[in-house]
Amino acid sequence: MSTWLLPENIADVLPSEARKIEELRRRLLDRFRAYGYEMVMPPLLEYLESLLIGSGRDLNLRTFKLVDQLSGRTLGLRADITPQVARIDAHLLNRQGVTRLCYAGNVLHTRPRGLHATREQIQIGAEIYGHAGLEADLEIQQLMLDALRLAGLGKVRLGLCHAGILEALIDADPAAAALGETLYEALAGKDVPDLADLTAGLQPQTRDALRALPSLYGDATVIDEARERLPALPGIARALDELAFLVREINGAELMIDLADLGGYAYHRGVMFLAYVDGVPNAVARGGRYDQVGEAYGRARAATGFSLDLREVARISPVEARSSAILAPWRHDDALNASVAALRDAGEVVIQALPGHEHDVDEFACDRVLVERDGAWVVEARP
Amino acid sequence: MSTWLLPENIADVLPSEARKIEELRRRLLDRFRAYGYEMVMPPLLEYLESLLIGSGRDLNLRTFKLVDQLSGRTLGLRADITPQVARIDAHLLNRQGVTRLCYAGNVLHTRPRGLHATREQIQIGAEIYGHAGLEADLEIQQLMLDALRLAGLGKVRLGLCHAGILEALIDADPAAAALGETLYEALAGKDVPDLADLTAGLQPQTRDALRALPSLYGDATVIDEARERLPALPGIARALDELAFLVREINGAELMIDLADLGGYAYHRGVMFLAYVDGVPNAVARGGRYDQVGEAYGRARAATGFSLDLREVARISPVEARSSAILAPWRHDDALNASVAALRDAGEVVIQALPGHEHDVDEFACDRVLVERDGAWVVEARP
Repeated sequence: MSTWLLPENIADVLPSEARKIEELRRRLLDRFRAYGYEMVMPPLLEYLESLLIGSGRDLNLRTFKLVDQLSGRTLGLRADITPQVARIDAHLLNRQGVTRLCYAGNVLHTRPRGLHATREQIQIGAEIYGHAGLEADLEIQQLMLDALRLAGLGKVRLGLCHAGILEALIDADPAAAALGETLYEALAGKDVPDLADLTAGLQPQTRDALRALPSLYGDATVIDEARERLPALPGIARALDELAFLVREINGAELMIDLADLGGYAYHRGVMFLAYVDGVPNAVARGGRYDQVGEAYGRARAATGFSLDLREVARISPVEARSSAILAPWRHDDALNASVAALRDAGEVVIQALPGHEHDVDEFACDRVLVERDGAWVVEARP
Repeated sequence: MSTWLLPENIADVLPSEARKIEELRRRLLDRFRAYGYEMVMPPLLEYLESLLIGSGRDLNLRTFKLVDQLSGRTLGLRADITPQVARIDAHLLNRQGVTRLCYAGNVLHTRPRGLHATREQIQIGAEIYGHAGLEADLEIQQLMLDALRLAGLGKVRLGLCHAGILEALIDADPAAAALGETLYEALAGKDVPDLADLTAGLQPQTRDALRALPSLYGDATVIDEARERLPALPGIARALDELAFLVREINGAELMIDLADLGGYAYHRGVMFLAYVDGVPNAVARGGRYDQVGEAYGRARAATGFSLDLREVARISPVEARSSAILAPWRHDDALNASVAALRDAGEVVIQALPGHEHDVDEFACDRVLVERDGAWVVEARP
């Protein structure tokens, strides 16, 4: 086995891609900060139970496990940062008011989501705690749209869904609760035949509603259609009102309602959302409410947030990172060194060609040279 | 066990520290770029054999191991990024000329270096490949000093050592080679009694030279002293000439020569260096030559570089990250929203107080407010 081979679905990020990722990382973190989100950096490793709290079986299967030599206990290599940030809000910061937090860091998955998907993503996101109102959902969604715009992805389709609808149906019919994850999977996959089989034994009202969900999909008129086709349960009415509020308030995206979609990981409650761009089949960013997660860490706090994979967004982003540079000679010359230092302080990239390598600089596009003219060092266009 | 407990010597980075780390991370990466260093991002996980190539037993013991479900093979969670960057230079970029690379990323250690040391560092560094001359060592050392200056650590003591001295002594006396790591440990610890015992059976010239090394420590005059006290082997003369060149050329640091010091990990050859600041016992940055590492990945390339732990440097750095902000109300008002967006685009932090939370914003120091005056939204000092 060659020593330079990497594990499957694991890859180095080489200079041009790294420059773009770094550029986008800064733009997004600066934007989060401009909205008042404070950065935190949770660790890569935690005790496995802490990492998996409030999450589903899916996250457990996706998490790498290893043994801690200091404690003998099992550690997990994080596959998702959101629960860690909820832990920080609930336990470490322990504030009463609204807390806005953001983060950017690597996450690892035991198995890739697809044949060419990476197992190491750079997850970047923002979370707002302590406010149960829709204004927080709206702020998070606008922040996500703003972030995608800064990544050059201006034309976004925003898919909205709501966990409260399925929750209300299940609460009204215990037999539906017993179907558990099989039901979620059939709904998420819009698997109509499977759904027909699964729901055959349920009360007629629940059965018809569950069977209707996959077709409750489209523009904002879906909300009115759902009011007619779904039972008049209080939870369903509330969920549809919330979606209608967001449809009225959101700016800068084409909206899509999808009442069968259940988002990603299992900790979401309430409004969930996904951002799609042309030519990319999967959502490029996603988020939603997860009010109950903090409870597991000792303090129930309202919570909503979003995240995206910076490597994926960099891959599709048209943003270009500047790369022009000045080529300077290497010489024992104080005036030259002072000139090079001043140019670098002014934000220029200055590459000193090391002795014997004057002609092989191929790293940057050196469009200018630093040359000596009448005893002074000046920048000129490269001949 | 409480779910919010973290493993020993693993900690969250909370907002004020995270802001400082992020500020320093950007300053250093921008400075690396200004010198022409291109960023790469190697993965957190690699096959264990690849990660440990060219390194000593120490790195093996410090590396977390886990099993890859896709291949069944053992993966390592990186404890050092330098060998990964050498792999990228040797195999992926495969350039003939000089290649300058830099990186910033997390590394994990199975055991902490001290009682309060973290097991998760943020390693940031720069490497130069393809130039065996001292000009490359000089550039790397000046870049490290420049980076520390930008972190507010202007007064640096730079310790210089050279692996070539011990190498020449061992080459001249095979019995010394047999002492292996025991000898390195005694020298690194300046353990004079232990060194006396260990060297008792060696040739008188080797014995006296090894016993002299711990006292060959101090300012630049140590180089001349070493020329008198150490045997006139070609390797020793070359090493001392190299140190004398650097002593002449380096600007901006107090220099210390330490001929018994052997640096950190076992892959270093040639000139090695460590940066110390007042009040901190351990080196805050370190580096050196490791010309042979690329060979294991298929291509021997001259290489030198440096790295530091950004968390440790942030801890001691006096750099302050700005945190003032503007407090704005939440209202369904297009003029307000446009004003907030314009301020954020101009680089301001604007926090919209969510309904019911107008008085609890404690995240940022809001020294200004956005208020409506005669139908226009204006920024005023906070009452």
